[in-house]
Amino acid sequence: MGTLVLLRHGESVWNAEGLFTGWVDVDLSATGEEEARRGGKLLHEADLRPDIVHTSVLKRAIRTANLALEAADLHWLPVRRSWRLNERHYGALQGKDKAQTREEYGDEQFMVWRRSYDTPPPPIADNDPYSQVGDRRYAQLPSELMPRTECLADVVDRMLPYWYDQIVPDLAAGRTVLVAAHGNSLRALVKHLDGIDDETIAGLNIPTGIPLVYELNDDFTPRKTGGEYLDPEAAKAAIEAVKNQGKK
Amino acid sequence: MGTLVLLRHGESVWNAEGLFTGWVDVDLSATGEEEARRGGKLLHEADLRPDIVHTSVLKRAIRTANLALEAADLHWLPVRRSWRLNERHYGALQGKDKAQTREEYGDEQFMVWRRSYDTPPPPIADNDPYSQVGDRRYAQLPSELMPRTECLADVVDRMLPYWYDQIVPDLAAGRTVLVAAHGNSLRALVKHLDGIDDETIAGLNIPTGIPLVYELNDDFTPRKTGGEYLDPEAAKAAIEAVKNQGKK
Repeated sequence: MGTLVLLRHGESVWNAEGLFTGWVDVDLSATGEEEARRGGKLLHEADLRPDIVHTSVLKRAIRTANLALEAADLHWLPVRRSWRLNERHYGALQGKDKAQTREEYGDEQFMVWRRSYDTPPPPIADNDPYSQVGDRRYAQLPSELMPRTECLADVVDRMLPYWYDQIVPDLAAGRTVLVAAHGNSLRALVKHLDGIDDETIAGLNIPTGIPLVYELNDDFTPRKTGGEYLDPEAAKAAIEAVKNQGKK
Repeated sequence: MGTLVLLRHGESVWNAEGLFTGWVDVDLSATGEEEARRGGKLLHEADLRPDIVHTSVLKRAIRTANLALEAADLHWLPVRRSWRLNERHYGALQGKDKAQTREEYGDEQFMVWRRSYDTPPPPIADNDPYSQVGDRRYAQLPSELMPRTECLADVVDRMLPYWYDQIVPDLAAGRTVLVAAHGNSLRALVKHLDGIDDETIAGLNIPTGIPLVYELNDDFTPRKTGGEYLDPEAAKAAIEAVKNQGKK
C-alpha cells in the first residue's frame, strides 16, 4: 500500500558551522547542495519515481527537494509544504554554537537538550533575533500553536496530524510519496512507523541526502522495520558522523 | 480584489537556439536562469510578496519560479502545477528550427503557424521523438484531452478552466497570486483579462522574466488594462526583441 521515501536535507551553512538551527531558515551549504543532487541521482538509479513531494517550509528542505527532483528530472511533481514537517524548534538554543553550549552547560545537560524525548530547551523570547514570531509564513498559526521550543515528543504531536491527513491518503491511493524534511521531524515519523520507544529513539540518527525507503502494509506499518537506505554503506558511515556532532 | 502577477519563464536552451519548443521539456539557458533571478529581485524590490504560486508542468517555468522565489527569499510559498498552464503545443513543428521553417514554408505560412488565432500547425505523430504521448506527467489526461497541436484559441480553451477553478478562488480571498508560465499560455490569459480580440492578440508579446502585475476589480477584470510591468523600460525593449524572432 504505497511507498514512502524519506529524505533528510543536505548539510546547511549552520550544520557546517556547528550551530543549533531549529526553525531558523538557514540555506544549504555547497556540500548540502551536492548531497541533495546525489539523493536525486540515487532515486533515479533505483528507478524510484515519487508521485508527490512533501516538504517543510524551511529552505534547506525545500531546496533539497528541488535539487533532488532536478537531478531525477522530476521537476513537475506536485509538491505540498507544511510547518508540521519543520525541524524541531530548538528554543533559546537557536543560533548558539553546539560545542560552546556543550562546554558551558556540560555533557549531561547538552545531551538532555539534544536527545531527551520530553525535555525541551528553554523557550526562545519573542524578541530574540532568532525567534520566528511575526514571520509571514506562520501567519496562520494561532499563538498557542506557534512553538517557542520543542522536545521530540512535541514534534511527534505536531507532525502526526500531517502524516495522517496529508501523507497517508496519498499512500492509500498506492502512490510513492517523497518527504523532504529534517533530522528530528523524520526521527519523529520513523519513531511512529517503527514503533520505537521513547528511550531507544535517542540513539537513532538519520543521515543527510540518502533516501530511506519504506514499503508499507495495508495498515501503513512498514513491511520491513527500519526501511532500507538506497545507499546502505554511505548511510552507515553518515550515521556515525552525526553521532559525533558537538564533540570537539 | 487580489493581485495577479504574471511571469514568463526566462530564455530556454531552445529559445537561444531558435527552435520551436512547445511541450518539449527544455531547460533554461544560463541567461534564462539570470532572467528568473532578476524577476525575483524585481518582486522583492517592489515589495510585492505573492501568497501562492502556480506553474505549468514544464521545467523552464518551474525553475523560473524556483529561482525567482529564491531571489525573493520566498522558497516556502505554496505552489500548484498544471498542464493547463503549459506552453502552446506546437504540433509537428516541435524541435524544428524557426528560421529554417520560415525559409522552407515562407513568411506567410510561418506567421500563420506562429500567430494565427485559430489555425494550428500540423499535428505531431505519437511516435515522433518530440511527442509527449506516454509522458508520465500526462498519465491522467484522457487521450482526447492530450494535445497533438494547438492554436492560441485551443490554449485559451484549456487554460480558462484553470483560471476559473484554481486561480480566481485565490484572488477572491484577496491573495497575491504569481503565475509562472509561458509566452502563449500567458498571452491567452492576458487576452481574456484585457478582452483583446482575435486579431489584435497576434501583435501582443510578453517579455521573459519581467513580472507583469494586474490589480483586479471585484469581478476579476483588471483595474488597468494591460497591467503594469515592474520594469517598464526593460519590458518595452524585450517586447521588440521577441517580435524579431525567426528573422535572420
